[in-house]
Amino acid sequence: MSDNGNPVPNESIESAPRSRMVEWTDPLEVAAQGRQMGGLEFIRALIDGRVPPPPIVHLMRFTAVSADVGTVTFTCEPDESMYNPLGTVHGGLVCALLDTVLGCATQTTLGVGQGYTSLEIKVNYLKPVLASSGTLTATGTVTKPGRRAAFAEGTVVDASGKLVATASSTLLVFEH
Amino acid sequence: MSDNGNPVPNESIESAPRSRMVEWTDPLEVAAQGRQMGGLEFIRALIDGRVPPPPIVHLMRFTAVSADVGTVTFTCEPDESMYNPLGTVHGGLVCALLDTVLGCATQTTLGVGQGYTSLEIKVNYLKPVLASSGTLTATGTVTKPGRRAAFAEGTVVDASGKLVATASSTLLVFEH
Amino acid sequence: MSDNGNPVPNESIESAPRSRMVEWTDPLEVAAQGRQMGGLEFIRALIDGRVPPPPIVHLMRFTAVSADVGTVTFTCEPDESMYNPLGTVHGGLVCALLDTVLGCATQTTLGVGQGYTSLEIKVNYLKPVLASSGTLTATGTVTKPGRRAAFAEGTVVDASGKLVATASSTLLVFEH
Amino acid sequence: MSDNGNPVPNESIESAPRSRMVEWTDPLEVAAQGRQMGGLEFIRALIDGRVPPPPIVHLMRFTAVSADVGTVTFTCEPDESMYNPLGTVHGGLVCALLDTVLGCATQTTLGVGQGYTSLEIKVNYLKPVLASSGTLTATGTVTKPGRRAAFAEGTVVDASGKLVATASSTLLVFEH
Repeated sequence: MSDNGNPVPNESIESAPRSRMVEWTDPLEVAAQGRQMGGLEFIRALIDGRVPPPPIVHLMRFTAVSADVGTVTFTCEPDESMYNPLGTVHGGLVCALLDTVLGCATQTTLGVGQGYTSLEIKVNYLKPVLASSGTLTATGTVTKPGRRAAFAEGTVVDASGKLVATASSTLLVFEH
Repeated sequence: MSDNGNPVPNESIESAPRSRMVEWTDPLEVAAQGRQMGGLEFIRALIDGRVPPPPIVHLMRFTAVSADVGTVTFTCEPDESMYNPLGTVHGGLVCALLDTVLGCATQTTLGVGQGYTSLEIKVNYLKPVLASSGTLTATGTVTKPGRRAAFAEGTVVDASGKLVATASSTLLVFEH
Repeated sequence: MSDNGNPVPNESIESAPRSRMVEWTDPLEVAAQGRQMGGLEFIRALIDGRVPPPPIVHLMRFTAVSADVGTVTFTCEPDESMYNPLGTVHGGLVCALLDTVLGCATQTTLGVGQGYTSLEIKVNYLKPVLASSGTLTATGTVTKPGRRAAFAEGTVVDASGKLVATASSTLLVFEH
Repeated sequence: MSDNGNPVPNESIESAPRSRMVEWTDPLEVAAQGRQMGGLEFIRALIDGRVPPPPIVHLMRFTAVSADVGTVTFTCEPDESMYNPLGTVHGGLVCALLDTVLGCATQTTLGVGQGYTSLEIKVNYLKPVLASSGTLTATGTVTKPGRRAAFAEGTVVDASGKLVATASSTLLVFEH
């Protein structure tokens, strides 16, 4: 794999093959483990590596960093594999990162036997993301927990601390 | 790579490694070509393979299918590499697909020398997506083109024709 | 009340007082009647005048026009009393109209004993509204009904048939 | 007008007429004055009464309270005239209040000769509003100003300080 930003000299950049191997473990195992834990316990187990990361975390280069009741932080290492035809990181990467922290923040408010699913998310794109933006840090916070519905909001900042996106989401909460 | 849904017999599914190689070409080349074409011409060149697909298309298994002034259709092949810890395809994949068709639909309304960027997107998740959902078909339509701002809306249906998500987006239009 | 667009001659337009009397009936009576009917029956009773209109209908000059399972149409007569400091009808009027048709469209899918509440709405403003825009026609359609959550989308067109706004909403459904 | 929550004894609550007189001054005068001022200056003139309030402020019982660069606060006195058929204050009132503070917060970042219009708003309804909720306080804050587009977010709390709604908006900025 030729490194992003370091094209091999004397080689046509146009024809340079670029690749990335994505590996993961069975996501249904992860999900089954999740259903036996409280939400905060599960997110902390992901952070500690006691539960293997779900596939999306590998595909999109996310890392779970910290969690407390009602809030979580993830990072993301954007790279060229996420580029759109405009020459920037695809907005969908930012959506996925925000959807992750808003969902996981909500999960930290749930007990054993409670599940959730995102009903909708709205993302505001404040600043383009490039591979050179460096590590993105996303934080999700629950604005209102609930037994039937919950609300969460979040932000993404780049390595220089600049706000690149914000989001809000509505989530359905239910008993398994 | 062991196939999703077809775990190798007599092997612990928990420990089965799963992987996918993602390859792409230089996205800045694609972007440079895009700036020299009208929007519809560019999207049609992507469909015809005259312009190489941007990296995100490989990462998220998208295919550009058709385009006309104000509307485009893409498909997506969801697989296990996109799974979240709930045991379903991550909502961010659906966001990325919708962001793609809303952006490209807007691009079809632009001439040479005009650019665009998404300002925001809102996605409604109507139905979970699984690897078994089959090919997703996403269509984006411009509800109002413009010289400074444009609006687009879109839908995603699964292989059985069921609506899985809808979205609306606001896009900034500018001169390069 | 001097008519919008027809200032009285020889009178300072700046000092001309303008006013509107808003009258309504007890909204809790309306709500109590609503809880005893199926959703479609209730909306049709509002249309037929068998149930008195809730206050908001008078304040914002709405009229319930038609309803079927999963869809309703309301009209609105914008006037100068709804103007913002930019010299156009306040966007909140359009939000309220869309929130109304998305909520009522959802209500038509509910039986006796089921209630709903809006969790969120997103409105896209495609075209400014003026008092001279004439009668606005808003249609709401349920994109997915449900026992716990429902989704609805809608549009507003002005008297010339031009699209002025679109919206999507997520609604919580529950048993009384 | 019989007071909400204080029906006149021995009178059928069902038939009690309720009314409110709404008075306003020419909104185009307000708009013309606004175009000659910087944004913060204009909002402060509204607060100080040097510019008459636009009609919507009377219709929806808003009061401009404070403004600084990038942020404004308004209050709102909800009353029965804003009730929906569910027996609560219509969500559109909350949308209008949030649209107001997000727009005015953006306006405080603009100079003489710059204008703006809301492109979209998304509102999350966290808690129902009743006439008994007391004075609502809404604050809008610009998350990113801009020459072509700006982003703002806001909250509404009730008299007890409980969060009742949040919102985000995208606004187009232009030269007059």
